[in-house]
Amino acid sequence: MSIRVGIAGYGHVGRGVETALAQSPDMELKAVFTRRDPKTLTVRTPGTPVLPAGEAKRHRKEIDVMILCGSSAKDLPEQGPELAALFSTVDSYDVHASVPDYLSAMDKAAVRTAAVISAGWDPGLFSMTRMLSGAILPHGADNTFWGRGVSQGHSAAARRVEGVIDAVQYTIPIESAVSDVRGGSSRSLTASQRHVRECYVVPEEGADRAAIEHKIRQMPHYFAEYDTKVHFVTREELALDHAGMPHGGFVIRTGTTGESRSHKHVMEFSLKLGSNPEFTASVLVAYARAAARLAKEKQYGAKTVLDIPLTYLSPRDRGTLIKELI
Amino acid sequence: MSIRVGIAGYGHVGRGVETALAQSPDMELKAVFTRRDPKTLTVRTPGTPVLPAGEAKRHRKEIDVMILCGSSAKDLPEQGPELAALFSTVDSYDVHASVPDYLSAMDKAAVRTAAVISAGWDPGLFSMTRMLSGAILPHGADNTFWGRGVSQGHSAAARRVEGVIDAVQYTIPIESAVSDVRGGSSRSLTASQRHVRECYVVPEEGADRAAIEHKIRQMPHYFAEYDTKVHFVTREELALDHAGMPHGGFVIRTGTTGESRSHKHVMEFSLKLGSNPEFTASVLVAYARAAARLAKEKQYGAKTVLDIPLTYLSPRDRGTLIKELI
Repeated sequence: MSIRVGIAGYGHVGRGVETALAQSPDMELKAVFTRRDPKTLTVRTPGTPVLPAGEAKRHRKEIDVMILCGSSAKDLPEQGPELAALFSTVDSYDVHASVPDYLSAMDKAAVRTAAVISAGWDPGLFSMTRMLSGAILPHGADNTFWGRGVSQGHSAAARRVEGVIDAVQYTIPIESAVSDVRGGSSRSLTASQRHVRECYVVPEEGADRAAIEHKIRQMPHYFAEYDTKVHFVTREELALDHAGMPHGGFVIRTGTTGESRSHKHVMEFSLKLGSNPEFTASVLVAYARAAARLAKEKQYGAKTVLDIPLTYLSPRDRGTLIKELI
Repeated sequence: MSIRVGIAGYGHVGRGVETALAQSPDMELKAVFTRRDPKTLTVRTPGTPVLPAGEAKRHRKEIDVMILCGSSAKDLPEQGPELAALFSTVDSYDVHASVPDYLSAMDKAAVRTAAVISAGWDPGLFSMTRMLSGAILPHGADNTFWGRGVSQGHSAAARRVEGVIDAVQYTIPIESAVSDVRGGSSRSLTASQRHVRECYVVPEEGADRAAIEHKIRQMPHYFAEYDTKVHFVTREELALDHAGMPHGGFVIRTGTTGESRSHKHVMEFSLKLGSNPEFTASVLVAYARAAARLAKEKQYGAKTVLDIPLTYLSPRDRGTLIKELI
């Protein structure tokens, strides 16, 4: 019997989940829930019901896993526990500093459900890599690089500057830092020692470009500590050259073993993503399978990617996986 | 209370386990078991008892996990189940084709113990990567590359050729195949489309070098299907330039997502290892921790790296891991 899935929130990630489900013959999309007027949404899968978010509760018995595709900052802190009380869930909650609080709120809510949190690529796959490589090479250091890719948060920050119509921000790893770490250096670098930021900005007509550039480059938390470049482009250029959502990054751990720590090892996990939201959606769908199975086994409560055996992610049985992959 | 560890087999990997344990404050080496005359072994850790393999049974109550460091081909098929009946175990059993049989034999033996099998890097970490990336990108293909590194099995095969005193064989990925796959090609290549082999051979005085080269290059299963180069060197050159045991490799999965599969993604996990046996030993030690915990929780039987949550590999508690790594 296939796993019956609901999508809560139909933005880029929600649409990505919809197409990822089409690649998963063991799963079935039952409904999309939205806070917008359902009539204004056109979903890709013909015949899929689009329902108001508030009606989710009524569909409790028809859905095995709800995939939460709302914003981590605005939607999940409230929506997450509400839905986890009703459904097994999976999300890509990504506010690193608040993960323990969110986990605890989801754990309280998930009394008779399984709630998998922070199952994207960072947090998510990169967290798994940091965990695995740190356990194997306890004497070492890891560095995470992001990019080259579009950061939604930083793009939004640049858009808030007075005189800016639209903006896209790229996070770009610093080549010399990358080769330093890949070469086996065991220094831990700060985020600004590892990355530069590049903004493509559409200014209002007649806006003070120098002032815009200054405001962006000095913005605390977002740009001030980084080497930030600002390029001014037209609306058309932005639409033509910067509409995609590529991203990626890599986690590198370097460590040493041996009596005199004379042997150096480098472990690296890297991603080059054609579409950040579609890849995140693909991770969510794999972990939705895990959530359904955890709930079936009555392993209730909130879980992270560090808690779940890998076999839970696949529709194939354990014997086949072991035979073909080990 | 620290995890009490025994080492069964004191070759390169066994010695690597010994130094890896010294990096793990939560673990304690209790004894080394050997089939050789214990008096002939000098272990690195002063005071560690070196005992005959046959006496392991008597030390059942003093050891939480036995780390099996014997050969996969010669020792483990017999020794593995014998020891798993007495102790929780971990090994790096690496005969891919026989993994299901070995798993089943270990599962039968591990009635009141936990036996973690095939916990090295391939099989092991690379198996985990293939599992994870295949579950996330179902439409795609993966390719595993090994090297540049010394293959013990192929070195031994070259050494068996008449007229050869000693030999070291390197497995080397083909650069063009690597860039093809990294660039996003979703072809699955055969092992010989991905690798060349290079042998450094010390011939007997007066040996027929052309005959040696021919015999190596035509050897079925090992070299015949590969582009193989044979270099003749002196004993001194072999000792000077080819005594290290570096290795490494990478698993690359390329896949597509989206309505028209228009977005391409590349996931890659790579290793550059200064010492193959010491790194394998480090993986074994992390999974020894998991074996001890599984047994404590009465999760008995044989397990693979695909069955075990990542938190089991770390001495740190789950809350700290989630806070710091997610």
